[in-house]
Amino acid sequence: MAYQNLTLLTDLYELTMMQGYFNEKSNDTVVFDAFYRRNPSGNGYAITAGLEQIIEYVKNLSFAYDDIDYLRGLGIFSDDFLEYLAGFHFTGDIYAIPEGSIVFPQEPLVKVIAPIMEAQLVETAILNILNHQSLIATKASRVCFAANGDGIMEFGLRRAQGPDAGTLGARAAVIGGCIGTSNVLCGQIFDIPVLGTHAHSWIMSFPDEYTAFKTYADMYPDACILLVDTYDTLKSGVPNAIRVFEEMKAAGISSKKYGIRLDSGDLAYLSKKARKMLDAAGFPDAVISASSDLDEYLIDSLKTQGAAITSWGVGTNLITSADCPAFGGVYKLAAIKKEGEEQFTAKIKISENPAKITNPGNKTVFRLIDKETGKLKADLIALADEVYDTSKDLEIFHPIDTWKRSTLKGGTYEIEEILIPIFKKGQCVYDSPKTMDIRAFCQRELDLLWDESRRLVNPQEVYVDLSKPLYDLKMNLLNKRGNKA
Amino acid sequence: MAYQNLTLLTDLYELTMMQGYFNEKSNDTVVFDAFYRRNPSGNGYAITAGLEQIIEYVKNLSFAYDDIDYLRGLGIFSDDFLEYLAGFHFTGDIYAIPEGSIVFPQEPLVKVIAPIMEAQLVETAILNILNHQSLIATKASRVCFAANGDGIMEFGLRRAQGPDAGTLGARAAVIGGCIGTSNVLCGQIFDIPVLGTHAHSWIMSFPDEYTAFKTYADMYPDACILLVDTYDTLKSGVPNAIRVFEEMKAAGISSKKYGIRLDSGDLAYLSKKARKMLDAAGFPDAVISASSDLDEYLIDSLKTQGAAITSWGVGTNLITSADCPAFGGVYKLAAIKKEGEEQFTAKIKISENPAKITNPGNKTVFRLIDKETGKLKADLIALADEVYDTSKDLEIFHPIDTWKRSTLKGGTYEIEEILIPIFKKGQCVYDSPKTMDIRAFCQRELDLLWDESRRLVNPQEVYVDLSKPLYDLKMNLLNKRGNKA
Repeated sequence: MAYQNLTLLTDLYELTMMQGYFNEKSNDTVVFDAFYRRNPSGNGYAITAGLEQIIEYVKNLSFAYDDIDYLRGLGIFSDDFLEYLAGFHFTGDIYAIPEGSIVFPQEPLVKVIAPIMEAQLVETAILNILNHQSLIATKASRVCFAANGDGIMEFGLRRAQGPDAGTLGARAAVIGGCIGTSNVLCGQIFDIPVLGTHAHSWIMSFPDEYTAFKTYADMYPDACILLVDTYDTLKSGVPNAIRVFEEMKAAGISSKKYGIRLDSGDLAYLSKKARKMLDAAGFPDAVISASSDLDEYLIDSLKTQGAAITSWGVGTNLITSADCPAFGGVYKLAAIKKEGEEQFTAKIKISENPAKITNPGNKTVFRLIDKETGKLKADLIALADEVYDTSKDLEIFHPIDTWKRSTLKGGTYEIEEILIPIFKKGQCVYDSPKTMDIRAFCQRELDLLWDESRRLVNPQEVYVDLSKPLYDLKMNLLNKRGNKA
Repeated sequence: MAYQNLTLLTDLYELTMMQGYFNEKSNDTVVFDAFYRRNPSGNGYAITAGLEQIIEYVKNLSFAYDDIDYLRGLGIFSDDFLEYLAGFHFTGDIYAIPEGSIVFPQEPLVKVIAPIMEAQLVETAILNILNHQSLIATKASRVCFAANGDGIMEFGLRRAQGPDAGTLGARAAVIGGCIGTSNVLCGQIFDIPVLGTHAHSWIMSFPDEYTAFKTYADMYPDACILLVDTYDTLKSGVPNAIRVFEEMKAAGISSKKYGIRLDSGDLAYLSKKARKMLDAAGFPDAVISASSDLDEYLIDSLKTQGAAITSWGVGTNLITSADCPAFGGVYKLAAIKKEGEEQFTAKIKISENPAKITNPGNKTVFRLIDKETGKLKADLIALADEVYDTSKDLEIFHPIDTWKRSTLKGGTYEIEEILIPIFKKGQCVYDSPKTMDIRAFCQRELDLLWDESRRLVNPQEVYVDLSKPLYDLKMNLLNKRGNKA
């Protein structure tokens, strides 16, 4: 809260390693990939988000005098190294998949090619930002899928894990599909619609519910959603709301948006009853919105039960991604070019668990789209210099069960490289779109998926294959390593 | 990230309600309580944290020109109200239970007494800060309890929900008992020990593991914890570490702290094997530390199985409080004093769920300590003007099962008012202690509890009673309300 520069937002070990690299191999260049291994919440995909803040972070990387003094005080850094830090700025290349894209496990979401000290320093902040916003954007897209076209409002600021989690989390939630947020700061910074009306304390501060409603309606006729559950929803709240709507109508006030909000009790039962009461009173266009510990499963269930709710405020479970509060992105070394070498040498991290073995080399990601349906056929992780000709047939295969093969006929598919340049030699070469434009892009991205892959539970897997050259490189390194053991 | 002033960190409805109050009742004074209803993670208590940031937020409350312009652009606020906001500052009183205190459901952790517009505005940010940090401090105290005196290092920055969650979360984790954090920014801002050595990428960037270890040990002999699981923990990592320790010994280098870190595999098995290898090689004081998706249950289980680990790095599950990622604090109206009135009128919020009925009136919290054992007997929520004489007997009773009664004999107990003044008439009257001093205070607070109330699962409940005057007031209001229905 009391800081603007995030240069020290890093794990101590990044700095102790940096000093080691500074002493031993300061002219090595490396490739690091930020990727994740499993979609959160059992989802069939993730939405990547946070790139705008990563760009801002990298642009502002600079150790202030105070930072250097602080690090000197730790007693573990040499004067030479501290002097290097004092003049530090980022000089490398960064590639990323744009925010709002659908992404899948193993794909490099961010790729850093830089002198080893620089690439190491940025690990922690890149992961922090990417993990957080991708998590919330993904959760939001689940909640919006459950709502099946109804508007979802992000209402979680008070339960978010600190000010950034509330503000950047709301940004991510909007990227993932929410129509707006209650968080005014987020609305201001990111030019996002802000939403909300009043709380129980408003009702309680008046002598009675009717007066509270009436006062509110007089002030805000065009966004007049009355909270009806302070005393008794069906006996007091809805009748008082109807009385106010009747008075508005009698006074000739036409409202752009009016209705009620339910915040407790059984939302299926109460909304159906309230709908009947509102319709019977001549207010079929009165909105019924609901909030109260909602998540994608409860919204799905309420809709299945015929709840008459068309507007949803989702708080805690969205802003914290409560069932899965961490994204699990990692940042792994993929290649090294030592001083004087021309070519990168691919690096692999072995694990007993095959899912934890990394993909080696300087890579990129291609998206293969079926021309006829407009849907995603597969993503292809490839080496950075591979070139494809879409007029020719392309055989793709499962990276573990390699006998699972499929051939895309030449002319029937499109190919797009989705990992694109963000920084070149330390200069930013990318303009972040506005948040609402990222949201619109994300909606188009989601249209690439069949509903089967968007299902909340046990979705159909989207295939992410390795190109033949990358697969061969990986097997080669694994076999070499195997011989060594 | 791009902001320092959090004045707009609020839900839109706080501002729409404020404008309503501004028009209707701008001279009313109110009492709001921030409290919570259930301890997180099934714990027997919570640790309150975040007050320092709440104070900073309130001190800096001020709408900048840009903020006013933004709000004007929303088209729902009058010029009069915007002019009022332009001159806004907080003029009320705030009371709070100091950070690091053990606290219990229903107790006001923060009490705001202020003109109704001011008290309403601060709701969202106070809850955001208090909920987040209290959640993480409480989780940390659980993890530390499981570790039974071993040091817990906070390692979660990369998985935290944004920069603040990583930084303020690490602060809260240290308040709750962690010995330090990997987060350098947190270390700098809050003067907290920073910890950490190197990652797998360090090992992989060298031609072999031994060279990586040796290079590290030469640079950092006094904090030489070697990560041994990059290739094969027992066949390669531990033997290479021992080789380096032997060379250090031969060279006459005495290390303040040296040892190994395990980050994968079965930590019980590997640590016991590694302990034997280190002991046999003459390094009985080599530390074995571990990280890898730890939480309080896994640490407890590993200790039960005799794992030879004495130092723990805990990341994701701590910094997100993964099993319970929200604290659930709420902010409720407790009393109103209308313009011209001398006395506050107590307010109560009714609910069908008795646990959701609020405690009315302007309240405080007393802590009752048994002189003989030094342990907590009970907390007592009372009206703000109640006075107790510890030389006299005090009868306390359960606020729902009122037949559960207990008498504290005069002279056998001490009483302390723990809700203390923080702001008086808008001026801060409280100095926040340093974070490490809050940590020490928290350790003393935890000593007030019997271990039975610290148990991770199904802990013994600590009693929080209502004073007789408060109980009578509450029953009175409930009965009146009942008569109305």
